[in-house]
Amino acid sequence: MKKIGKHTLQMNNIVNILETASIVGPKESNGPLAEYFDKCIEDEFWSEKTWEKAESKFIKESSSLVLAKSGLSFADMDYAFAGDLLNQCISSTFALRESNVPFFGIFGACSTFVEALCLGSVFIDSGACTNVLCSTSSHFCSAEKQFRFPLELGNQRTPTSQWTVTGSGSVILSKNGNSPHITHLTPGVITDLGIKDANNMGAAMAPAAISTLCSHFEDTGRTPEYYDAIFTGDLGYVGKDIFIDLARTKGYNIASKYNDCGVLMFDKEKQDTHSGGSGCACIATVFSGYLYKMLKEQKIKKLLLIATGALMNATSSQQGESIPGIAHAVAVEF
Amino acid sequence: MKKIGKHTLQMNNIVNILETASIVGPKESNGPLAEYFDKCIEDEFWSEKTWEKAESKFIKESSSLVLAKSGLSFADMDYAFAGDLLNQCISSTFALRESNVPFFGIFGACSTFVEALCLGSVFIDSGACTNVLCSTSSHFCSAEKQFRFPLELGNQRTPTSQWTVTGSGSVILSKNGNSPHITHLTPGVITDLGIKDANNMGAAMAPAAISTLCSHFEDTGRTPEYYDAIFTGDLGYVGKDIFIDLARTKGYNIASKYNDCGVLMFDKEKQDTHSGGSGCACIATVFSGYLYKMLKEQKIKKLLLIATGALMNATSSQQGESIPGIAHAVAVEF
Repeated sequence: MKKIGKHTLQMNNIVNILETASIVGPKESNGPLAEYFDKCIEDEFWSEKTWEKAESKFIKESSSLVLAKSGLSFADMDYAFAGDLLNQCISSTFALRESNVPFFGIFGACSTFVEALCLGSVFIDSGACTNVLCSTSSHFCSAEKQFRFPLELGNQRTPTSQWTVTGSGSVILSKNGNSPHITHLTPGVITDLGIKDANNMGAAMAPAAISTLCSHFEDTGRTPEYYDAIFTGDLGYVGKDIFIDLARTKGYNIASKYNDCGVLMFDKEKQDTHSGGSGCACIATVFSGYLYKMLKEQKIKKLLLIATGALMNATSSQQGESIPGIAHAVAVEF
Repeated sequence: MKKIGKHTLQMNNIVNILETASIVGPKESNGPLAEYFDKCIEDEFWSEKTWEKAESKFIKESSSLVLAKSGLSFADMDYAFAGDLLNQCISSTFALRESNVPFFGIFGACSTFVEALCLGSVFIDSGACTNVLCSTSSHFCSAEKQFRFPLELGNQRTPTSQWTVTGSGSVILSKNGNSPHITHLTPGVITDLGIKDANNMGAAMAPAAISTLCSHFEDTGRTPEYYDAIFTGDLGYVGKDIFIDLARTKGYNIASKYNDCGVLMFDKEKQDTHSGGSGCACIATVFSGYLYKMLKEQKIKKLLLIATGALMNATSSQQGESIPGIAHAVAVEF
């Protein structure tokens, strides 16, 4: 591993994305990407008694599934990196408490999935580890309950609000295999331009995404032309437009090859999600389900994947604080 | 870096703990370790309007202080690893949002400090980074409010309960310098023996600490005799006794060289903290304040530092869930 420029790490060794798994909830199962997911669950509770337990089941099942798909077991995993949006990340810790895999809990809000890929890549690149597991989850109902209002109130949602994806994505990073692999990491700095509207996460996170995009291009000497596709997750419709505009002011014209996982997840006309999808599971399932298949089929050969997160909680918003954003990027090639 | 045994990573290069900083609140300032801390703050609000903002100030100031003490600036830090107990780790993210350092948010409850040292060590050992910042915080008032009862209720505390330490510890890991250095990491697996009493964290976490202790000894071939001192943080009085007993059943007699940071932090007779201290700041400040000085003065030459965490939240306890524990260990030598 070599540091290039200010923030980027270039891998010395091949960090294979050996396998992925994606499981989504009922709304995602009716969205445009349904055919790409491994499992579509029609019951938001997934036979559990609470939404929190259901969310934890999503991550437990997606991590078991990625192992099954790759013919490996928990015993083959050197370390696990996982996180979610629930207070104290209980979805992840409860899901993996029987795995017996050394566990690193991480929190980067909706950027957690790519944070896990960054940390896991460093461990694999070191040569000391063979396989690491990276998993994240989110759940619309547990997120609404925790961050916004009880669902039973039936509150109206604002036009800029995003819909937390119910689901989980898991991947195995490995020094073995011949798969799409991670070549560069650009971990992000926290960026806070003073946005205070907790129902407009796209606007709060777009500046962080731009910061990381610019760092990545400056550090690597690359331009948007180098990549076949650039994906953020999850700026949603509002944040996507801001991101394209801000990129243009920095001299990068990305519009023709750029999209956002939150925009792709739901049907804008038929599914009433306002500004699109969000949550730790958004980029995790879109990458694990859709983008990984595009990479395997070489429909995308060079992908820049940027996950964004809003680093606030319910108390900070009540106390009048602004919403710091962060974005982590990985370059994936095949 | 080399993996030895099942869970342990042995560093190839010197990972110096270049400098440390510790700042504590009023109760800790009246405890037996007061003379070792860099700053003792007499006001729980530290001139802020809320406990959450005060906690964030602790981590902001301790990270600034460790930079000042080492003659470095944020611009010299390649990456930062930080976490805390507040929902969505807002103490850390708000504290470092102006630092412009690429940031990895982590969550391991009270084990977060050693989780940060583990991840930071891997980055330094890789050779790609020169300096990384590791910081954690906790605050008695924000923790009581979030996990237990409003302080204004004046609820009676149970005899097994622990007192969350108010403060923050920060360290710089560096490939430069000639300081106490990290030689081995043993990240822990999640361990859940079914303890459900959220006021008895020591009992919930002790099995995780034993799991990591045994892994460390098995992986390295070492015995307790190898170390001058073994410290956990923060099992408290109840957990410490369980830990000693469990270690004995595994064939390790550690009683003569073992202590717990939660036990050391407060005066059992004069300061009414029941089972001792806890929180992300407990082991962070005791290590940064007391143990680091013992290492520098070579009163301790070989230290095994084990941080324990209880991976629950307020909702999981209300839903009748048990409390999974985790413990991460680092070996420090000078």
